[in-house]
Amino acid sequence: MRTGLYPGTFDPITLGHIDIIKRACSLVDRLVIGVAINRDKGPLFSLEQRVAMVEEECAFWAKKTGVEIVAHPFENLLIDCARDVGAQVIVRGLRAVADFEYEFQMVGMNRQLDNSIETVFLMAEAEHQAIASKLVKEIARLGGDVSKFVTPPVKEALHQMYPSDRAVLRREA
Amino acid sequence: MRTGLYPGTFDPITLGHIDIIKRACSLVDRLVIGVAINRDKGPLFSLEQRVAMVEEECAFWAKKTGVEIVAHPFENLLIDCARDVGAQVIVRGLRAVADFEYEFQMVGMNRQLDNSIETVFLMAEAEHQAIASKLVKEIARLGGDVSKFVTPPVKEALHQMYPSDRAVLRREA
Amino acid sequence: MRTGLYPGTFDPITLGHIDIIKRACSLVDRLVIGVAINRDKGPLFSLEQRVAMVEEECAFWAKKTGVEIVAHPFENLLIDCARDVGAQVIVRGLRAVADFEYEFQMVGMNRQLDNSIETVFLMAEAEHQAIASKLVKEIARLGGDVSKFVTPPVKEALHQMYPSDRAVLRREA
Amino acid sequence: MRTGLYPGTFDPITLGHIDIIKRACSLVDRLVIGVAINRDKGPLFSLEQRVAMVEEECAFWAKKTGVEIVAHPFENLLIDCARDVGAQVIVRGLRAVADFEYEFQMVGMNRQLDNSIETVFLMAEAEHQAIASKLVKEIARLGGDVSKFVTPPVKEALHQMYPSDRAVLRREA
Amino acid sequence: MRTGLYPGTFDPITLGHIDIIKRACSLVDRLVIGVAINRDKGPLFSLEQRVAMVEEECAFWAKKTGVEIVAHPFENLLIDCARDVGAQVIVRGLRAVADFEYEFQMVGMNRQLDNSIETVFLMAEAEHQAIASKLVKEIARLGGDVSKFVTPPVKEALHQMYPSDRAVLRREA
Amino acid sequence: MRTGLYPGTFDPITLGHIDIIKRACSLVDRLVIGVAINRDKGPLFSLEQRVAMVEEECAFWAKKTGVEIVAHPFENLLIDCARDVGAQVIVRGLRAVADFEYEFQMVGMNRQLDNSIETVFLMAEAEHQAIASKLVKEIARLGGDVSKFVTPPVKEALHQMYPSDRAVLRREA
Repeated sequence: MRTGLYPGTFDPITLGHIDIIKRACSLVDRLVIGVAINRDKGPLFSLEQRVAMVEEECAFWAKKTGVEIVAHPFENLLIDCARDVGAQVIVRGLRAVADFEYEFQMVGMNRQLDNSIETVFLMAEAEHQAIASKLVKEIARLGGDVSKFVTPPVKEALHQMYPSDRAVLRREA
Repeated sequence: MRTGLYPGTFDPITLGHIDIIKRACSLVDRLVIGVAINRDKGPLFSLEQRVAMVEEECAFWAKKTGVEIVAHPFENLLIDCARDVGAQVIVRGLRAVADFEYEFQMVGMNRQLDNSIETVFLMAEAEHQAIASKLVKEIARLGGDVSKFVTPPVKEALHQMYPSDRAVLRREA
Repeated sequence: MRTGLYPGTFDPITLGHIDIIKRACSLVDRLVIGVAINRDKGPLFSLEQRVAMVEEECAFWAKKTGVEIVAHPFENLLIDCARDVGAQVIVRGLRAVADFEYEFQMVGMNRQLDNSIETVFLMAEAEHQAIASKLVKEIARLGGDVSKFVTPPVKEALHQMYPSDRAVLRREA
Repeated sequence: MRTGLYPGTFDPITLGHIDIIKRACSLVDRLVIGVAINRDKGPLFSLEQRVAMVEEECAFWAKKTGVEIVAHPFENLLIDCARDVGAQVIVRGLRAVADFEYEFQMVGMNRQLDNSIETVFLMAEAEHQAIASKLVKEIARLGGDVSKFVTPPVKEALHQMYPSDRAVLRREA
Repeated sequence: MRTGLYPGTFDPITLGHIDIIKRACSLVDRLVIGVAINRDKGPLFSLEQRVAMVEEECAFWAKKTGVEIVAHPFENLLIDCARDVGAQVIVRGLRAVADFEYEFQMVGMNRQLDNSIETVFLMAEAEHQAIASKLVKEIARLGGDVSKFVTPPVKEALHQMYPSDRAVLRREA
Repeated sequence: MRTGLYPGTFDPITLGHIDIIKRACSLVDRLVIGVAINRDKGPLFSLEQRVAMVEEECAFWAKKTGVEIVAHPFENLLIDCARDVGAQVIVRGLRAVADFEYEFQMVGMNRQLDNSIETVFLMAEAEHQAIASKLVKEIARLGGDVSKFVTPPVKEALHQMYPSDRAVLRREA
């Protein structure tokens, strides 16, 4: 049985992430979505909220693809997390040259730590490649419509975080 | 009548920005310089100062090119700002691959929000491409000469922000 | 009246080119599609065929947008061509970092030749960015379906160029 | 059973290719090395020679990893080749930003042709990333030592292609 | 006598930095390692610690290469620092496209400030290119083994900064 | 005494090359301009013409900087050429990300061949970075003015190669 680890902060999970999860299902029999705790960066959503949003999506795709998909919070080294969950493969999404460069560095350092775990890269669908969680939050904060970037439950969660901003801004403008 | 929106933080406006403004005048009949409020990032200059510096430059180029140029503070979504000011075109300067990647993401997301507003990219003159507001402030802070990066009034404003650093540093060194 | 020049080899015109033409219509009142003769590179289609395919698309978009669009073969310097057709603006599509770098060089050299003509860059829709004429021809040559990359008349023209390849290859394989 | 397709020209196979093959073995149960015929480009080695060199390496890694590895010449579309050999996954090596851009285009176009076949990217070991078949041939042609870039049998094959160049050049210099 | 300045934060010095220092010794007779004070960024190690770690390495390489190597803390402009230490040449390491872009900007602005000081770029060994001080600190903080990225004294210093993290994390996981 | 090798095809030498030569003079006591024979690529100018054009420039800068500068044709491996001329340092100009990537590969392979020879990179002045010999020839061929890209003797040599093109093209247009 092949196990893959797809790590991220998922603050929140976007259609771009889901695109990668869906594709990763063709590579492994079991997919662990590693949700980074990231205390320092101060995520918008709590770990519990982020895991819950990821699990909601996992349930759908697990049923559709027959792959076992689980969410797993982690704070330790990615390589240690991969070992803990028994993953032979780390899955990463590539969107842009900047991603590529960063991943190139990470793969290099991770191999020095444990050369037995392989990293594979997948590319999201063209219309999902531009989606960045950071920009999604910015758009939600400024009252924009995020329907094309996240699923309806995540959109709802973003609205609860930024309830009345747009009205405020509209009046200010 | 074609209206363009050239957004930025302009903290402060540099010769690189002015180069783009000058070029944008050949594309539109009216050019709105959108000055982002950017409360979170804590700009060095206040919104009022940044708008005043932009307007000083606008006056000169408006007279020279016959294009109406106005400064317009905004905090909402860029796409909403474009609609508010009646712009059909968003103007952006490209300097480097990193810019390109970021803009690529922004255009992708902005089109999902409103596909009727076009984004066009211009390249500054070679000697102005390396100018970044952040580096200009760093040079001014450390007592360097910013004459080749900003206009005399902006240079003067920077000196008032960082009055005696150089003397101090010189003594330290 | 603003005139733009959109130059290329158009061997053949793809949905990516058409996307840029459509967007350029929001910038100018008259758009000249400069069809490079490119004798040395040995295009697949003759100049007459390429111009005819471009003109067929122009007719549609000219009617839809009200912009005058004409195809114009050229072999001289791009800057001379811009002057010949009375263009103030050269329009270019950006798809990738490699494009950006090349365009950066071209803009630099063109400005040394004539600084009064501005170059603007537009980005095609995400799903059209990956389309390259060279790859479209390769796919057609190997018997693949090019329906998602070109319009039906161009697809038909490609099939006439590469009539029975697929059958042959299928038997070989 | 998962089948992967690793396509290339392998003119000749280098330590960089072998690094990717080795890594791909952790992803699939059966790995097809697609050797592109590439008549137009005029490879240095004949198809038979390239397949033979690939097979020699395959034998070693198949034994070591337990994965079935076969060489398969192909001239048709990559996506058709993947279907022909029953691959669910296309494996590609990434070395540089330029690779990334090209692959990005290819994935985009391939998905339009068949969205059911996934492309995954692997990164070779740092010291193998700089190896390009084209440079290896150039070095061999100029009499340089290619021991660090290819296996001994491939080195021998290169020497037979370029037997006495170095001596000649040394005398010329 | 040629003097070079190799500036950085060195928080802490890594095998990647040492690789560049070693290579710079073939270019100059005297090499000043400029240790940026960087008060704002809040380095992990104090200036004194960083200088001490740099000096320990300098001693080894100075003996080995015969080049005079000294550590020099600085907070002023890089160009002023170069003048202060009498350097004709600024030495920089290049690892990635992102580095290249940033350096490109810095060289452009530095030349406007003082065109008599040249900047040269060196590339570290492939296996050292992926090493970034920031990632090294992250790995040490999470209890990973940094032996392949830094020298033993630096590893020891990192362990004193992050004494028991791993145990803690292991229990949490 | 430090000897540097600056290799290229110099078909023809441009202001961008001369900028790098001038800068390299601050790094070495003796500078060898390696003029690649490049039989296969079919250069526009003969080896003799290219060497003569390089030497004309060398004479000027040698006098101005006190550095010994000589032109040296070569066809063998760059690393062998460096050894033949006694260079400790290979000098390269960097203009763009694409250059960077290619150089990155070359440095990696050259180090495997001879790790004792260092490669250093210099950046040309902003206004010279866009100059590519290939584009210069294209502009000259199409009758454009190359005065801002090459010295007067090289401009004259280009005019002799492409005597009456412009007139012809003008009539055609």
